Parts: sequence; structure tokens; C-alpha cells
Amino acid sequence: MFEYKVIKECSKTKARVGVLSTPHGEIRTPVFMPVGTQATVKGVLPESLKEIGAQIILSNTYHLYLRPGMDIVRKAGGLHKFMNWDRPILTDSGGYQVFSLSDRRKISEEGVEFSSHIDGSKHIFTPEKAVEIQNALGSDIIMALDECIAYPADYEYAKKSTERTLRWAKRCKEAHQNTEKQALFGIVQGGMHADLRIECAKRLVEMDFVGYALGGLSVGEPKELLYEMIAATEPYLPKEKPRYLMGVGSLDCLLQGTVGGIDMFDCVMQTRMARNGAAFAKGQRIHLRNAQYSEDFSPIDDECNCYVCQNYTKAYLRHLVKANEILASMLISYHNIYYTIQLMEGLRQAILEERTLEYVDKYFCLTNAIK
Amino acid sequence: MFEYKVIKECSKTKARVGVLSTPHGEIRTPVFMPVGTQATVKGVLPESLKEIGAQIILSNTYHLYLRPGMDIVRKAGGLHKFMNWDRPILTDSGGYQVFSLSDRRKISEEGVEFSSHIDGSKHIFTPEKAVEIQNALGSDIIMALDECIAYPADYEYAKKSTERTLRWAKRCKEAHQNTEKQALFGIVQGGMHADLRIECAKRLVEMDFVGYALGGLSVGEPKELLYEMIAATEPYLPKEKPRYLMGVGSLDCLLQGTVGGIDMFDCVMQTRMARNGAAFAKGQRIHLRNAQYSEDFSPIDDECNCYVCQNYTKAYLRHLVKANEILASMLISYHNIYYTIQLMEGLRQAILEERTLEYVDKYFCLTNAIK
Repeated sequence: MFEYKVIKECSKTKARVGVLSTPHGEIRTPVFMPVGTQATVKGVLPESLKEIGAQIILSNTYHLYLRPGMDIVRKAGGLHKFMNWDRPILTDSGGYQVFSLSDRRKISEEGVEFSSHIDGSKHIFTPEKAVEIQNALGSDIIMALDECIAYPADYEYAKKSTERTLRWAKRCKEAHQNTEKQALFGIVQGGMHADLRIECAKRLVEMDFVGYALGGLSVGEPKELLYEMIAATEPYLPKEKPRYLMGVGSLDCLLQGTVGGIDMFDCVMQTRMARNGAAFAKGQRIHLRNAQYSEDFSPIDDECNCYVCQNYTKAYLRHLVKANEILASMLISYHNIYYTIQLMEGLRQAILEERTLEYVDKYFCLTNAIK
Repeated sequence: MFEYKVIKECSKTKARVGVLSTPHGEIRTPVFMPVGTQATVKGVLPESLKEIGAQIILSNTYHLYLRPGMDIVRKAGGLHKFMNWDRPILTDSGGYQVFSLSDRRKISEEGVEFSSHIDGSKHIFTPEKAVEIQNALGSDIIMALDECIAYPADYEYAKKSTERTLRWAKRCKEAHQNTEKQALFGIVQGGMHADLRIECAKRLVEMDFVGYALGGLSVGEPKELLYEMIAATEPYLPKEKPRYLMGVGSLDCLLQGTVGGIDMFDCVMQTRMARNGAAFAKGQRIHLRNAQYSEDFSPIDDECNCYVCQNYTKAYLRHLVKANEILASMLISYHNIYYTIQLMEGLRQAILEERTLEYVDKYFCLTNAIK
């Protein structure tokens, strides 16, 4: 289980095509994972996700731990059964959410204490606890607990934090027993300091994880810095293991990340944009609320083959957005996820056919507006 | 077009089974029509509505006139095409919404002036305008403009208002030219005064509409009074024409109304309840937010065959409701509409098989909680 086969390496870039085996099916990489924070991809039925071609979704340990709680998900028979999704699931460790959502957090060697953003109740995540919760959830891929370093952070703090993240990674690996059914990924931290990231990557690789993630990126830094960190770290990650860039999913970053050697991505942008009435079209982001679409009876993107573009016009979607109708979020989320997955499918095909750079160039010249 | 065939009359009650032909297909009665106020049944895809078995939906002239406006719907090719629904649509005249939603309305012989609940802008609905808008929308069944009399109302006002509604009905009939593609229904008013309702029904029947609606009911009166008004009016409505009880759709009222000789019903309750986390189960209304469902891994109703009951537990739905997730509204709306349509399908079958009263009795003893 969890074998990762690299099928093709691009001869001109670091891009690769692969297949990761999991207990709930194979994942063809590079792959975009829609996010189902609270055990639902907001506004999209599981059947629709399958129709769209979603191979794996991500869900959040932090959120599910607080609500409904791991006992309920365990009693339900695990997260797959609870939410009616029989394809692979990846859960993060909660590290990022503790640092971005909770109040009054206090970090120590033991773990991180925090107050719930829902009711203020006090909790502690230790590496062992993060693994225990994810074991209860039963996700196919689980993540080690890490500290997401704020940007900017001084070198000394970043170094100290990264050392602790490494010790936590080791504790997670020791705590994780269910290795047949759940793969544990380590997370490379190090702030925006290339040497710290390299050191972190090397030491995680020594511990031998099933896959390696790049965490603590896309936290406010310029994109150039994000790309630099990928480029610095990539040579130290084993080619035969999957690499996952956490929380990154704008169209340009998906392309650039793949070219930089990343295999897996997730982002809430696709559904969050949708709830704000914004959709992907021709590599751009368009705002359906705008008056220019009031009598535009063409689809969001006339080259898109999705259910939404086959059946609905921008004028109708604009009406739904303006009227604050649930269907607006439903339809635009569907389209945005489809659009992103199609971008990645096309990229995968391009890598297989040695057209990687042509494909990326086409989109980069289209996507100035969403960089 | 618009032929109404009564297939079976119950020998013990006034219930009937029929088929109404429209340009977008046949409607088997008795029928429950889900409401798509703003050109969408809140939280439910058109494909899901078909899967559920919805034969016809209702949409609102008042809302669509204000937003997106009739010109946009006309340019889109009509409401069916605009909203991706190819089965029959009924639109109301806007009369009820003007009286329940708008501000500063002023009624005169000419029509009703009102201010938009969206932006305060001033408008006037005349009988001719209500027909013109519905002609632009292209709905299969359109309704005459009426005044919905508040409850309680004194006899003199109800009489004066009902006379005006009759004059408006005549003007609507004269204004409606597109009779091949759109059927105009008259609306019986008269407050809670049986003699006024009888007089109104008689005079509408003289004008010869395609169908007849009972309006101004379920406006705060006791249910006994609602049933009395149906019983008083029914004998004066021609048996060979469809009868429509507007805005009524609780389970007991659907059964009682059908037994009283009504063929068509609509209600927002099914989707509104869903958005508040309430679902139909065993003829009752259950509140999924309640703690008792936190570890209840059974479906909403274990006798229900809908997609939701086949795939989701109360514990999961409770989680979605508590987490304020869009999917909660989507799934519970689906179930509530399915449940209601199944109730009516079962009732139709019972009428055909001379089991009407047994069927109704079974549900009435179940539905005390939702009367």
C-alpha cells in the first residue's frame, strides 16, 4: 500500500507524473485536492465531486476534532463513511489551523495549547494527539504536527521552531501504528530561510516518511519567495516519494509548483471564490456580480465542458449571486473545482507528452490577473 | 393544450386524480409544487428536482420582476431556459408578495403601488402589468392579479376587496393573449367569509378560466377556518377544471386539501424548514440540531428511499447544521421535497384504489406534531 510510482519525468523541468496507491484507490499526480474543511466540500455533493473528477479531498483535523469530535467520527465508521466519500482523504494535522484560527495559543515542547474558535474551550494538540485524532478519522494520508511559522519571522525563531517541528515529526512517526491503512507525511518547515528548509528536509528524509509536504508557505510572502523555497527544497526530497505543497492552489502556483517538482496541492480558494461570486474563465478570475454580465447569456467559459458551463449563463449566475441564492455557491464551486482539475489533467497530459513548458506558458500568459 | 382530465373521483370524499397537459409536459394531480421564488428552488439542482420527481415548480413574479427584471428573462429565452428547467412552471401574479413583502403599498382600482423590498424603488402592478410580466417569463400557468386580504378583515372591506379582485380578474383575462402557451388561472378571494368566497367563485367561473385557485388562505387563521373555506367554495368550482390551493403545503393540509377536492399545492415550508435544520420523518417534524441526534447513525426516516436517507445519517446532518454548512440545506431540502412528493404520490395511488381515507387517517395520526 502507498506505493508511489513515477511514470514520467519531464526532460526540461522538474515536473513529474505519477500514481499513488491508497486503500481507497489510486491518485494520479500531479493532483489538486478540493478542501472539505468540516467533512464537506462547501456547496458540492460527493457525487458531483466524482463527476468533476476529484480523486482525493482534504479535510481538517482541527475542525473535526472540535466539531463533531473524533469519537463521533470514529463511531460513524470513520470519516469516509461519515461524509459519504469513498475515495481517498488526506487530513492535515491541525498545526496550521491552530496558528491561523484559534485564540490564545501557547506553544511548548509538549505541544500547542489553544482555545477553540467556536466556544473558547481549551485544548492541547501534541504530536501524539494529532496522530490519534487522524487515526480515529481514518483518512488515507495523515500529516505530522508542525508549527506554521508566521511571515516574516526572524532566523533565530525560525530555526528554533523548525527544530521543534522535527522533534514533533519523530514523535508522530513513533505514535503512528496504523501504517498499513494510513500513510504519514512529514512537513518541511523553515520559514523563508532556504538553509533551514534544506536541513529540515534532510532530517525528515532520514526519518523515512511515505511522503513529504512543504508547509508554512503562501502565508503572505511574495510568490517569488514561495518559488525559491520550493526550488531550494526539492533537490533534497527523494524522487520516489510524493511531494505535497500545502494550502496552495491558485492556477499559476499549481503550474509553477508542478514544474518545480510538486505532486499534490490543496486550496480553499476554489470554493471561497465561488461563495463570493468569482469564477475562473480563460485562466482569469471574473466577478459574476459585475453589471457587465447582466445580459451575458454565454457560459462562464465557452471552452469549459463542465455541467455548469453546459447549462447556465453568466446572466443567470449573476442573478443568483445578487439574490444571495445557495445555488450560486453550488454552481460556481462546481465550475471552479472542475476548471482547476481540468487544468491539472491537461498539465499531466502535457508532461507525459513532453509539452510541459508550452502548456505552462499558455496559461501563464493567460493568468496574469490571478497571479 | 391545458386539457385537464379527471381520471378518478373518490367515492367517499371529494378527492380526485387527474392529469393536466401543458406545453412542458403533463402534470399528474394531486400535485405538490416546490417553490423556486427567485428562479431557483433554494439549495436544490434542477437535476435533483427531477430525480425527486418534481413535476412542476412555482416561481414568483414579484421577485423576478424586481430582480433580474422581466427583460433579462425574456432575452434569456424565458424562465425555463434562464433557470435550466424544462418541466412546467407556474408563476403567481405578485399579488400576495406585494402584500406580504413590499413597503408602503397603496391599492387603487388601477392596481397596487408599492416600494421594492430590495431597494425601496417605486413600482405599480396593474392586472395588465401582471399578465405582461408573466407573458415575458413564459411560465406554463399564470395567475390573475388579486388582493390578498389580511386576516382578520371586516366583512365590508373583504367584500369591497373581493369585488375589485373580480374586476382585476376580468382585466387579466382580457390582457392575456398568449392562451395557447400559457394558461391563466383565476383566484378566489373573500377573506374568511364563505358567502363572499362562493360569490367570487361563481363569478370567476362565469369568466371561464383554465383553472381556479383559492388565495388568501393560510394567512394566520385557524386551520378549521381554512378547511371551512375550502369546503364552502369547492361545490362552486367546475369538476372538469384544476383547483389550486395557494401557499399551503404542510403535510396535514396537503392531505386534508386533497380530500376537500384540491388538485394543486405549493409551499416554501419544505426548503425553509431545511435551512433551519428541520426535516420530515414518520409524518413528524424533527429538529436535527438537537443533541439527541449527535450519535444517531440512522437516516432521517428509515422508510424513506431518497438519496439523502440512503447515504447520510442524522449524526452527519446534525454536524452540517451545527457547522452552518451549505450541504445541510442542500441535503435536508432534497429530503423534505422528496418526502412531500412521495406523500402525494401515495395519496394519488390511494385515491385510485379507493383507499383515500385509510391513507389520510394513517398520516393524520402520525402528523399531530406538524398540524
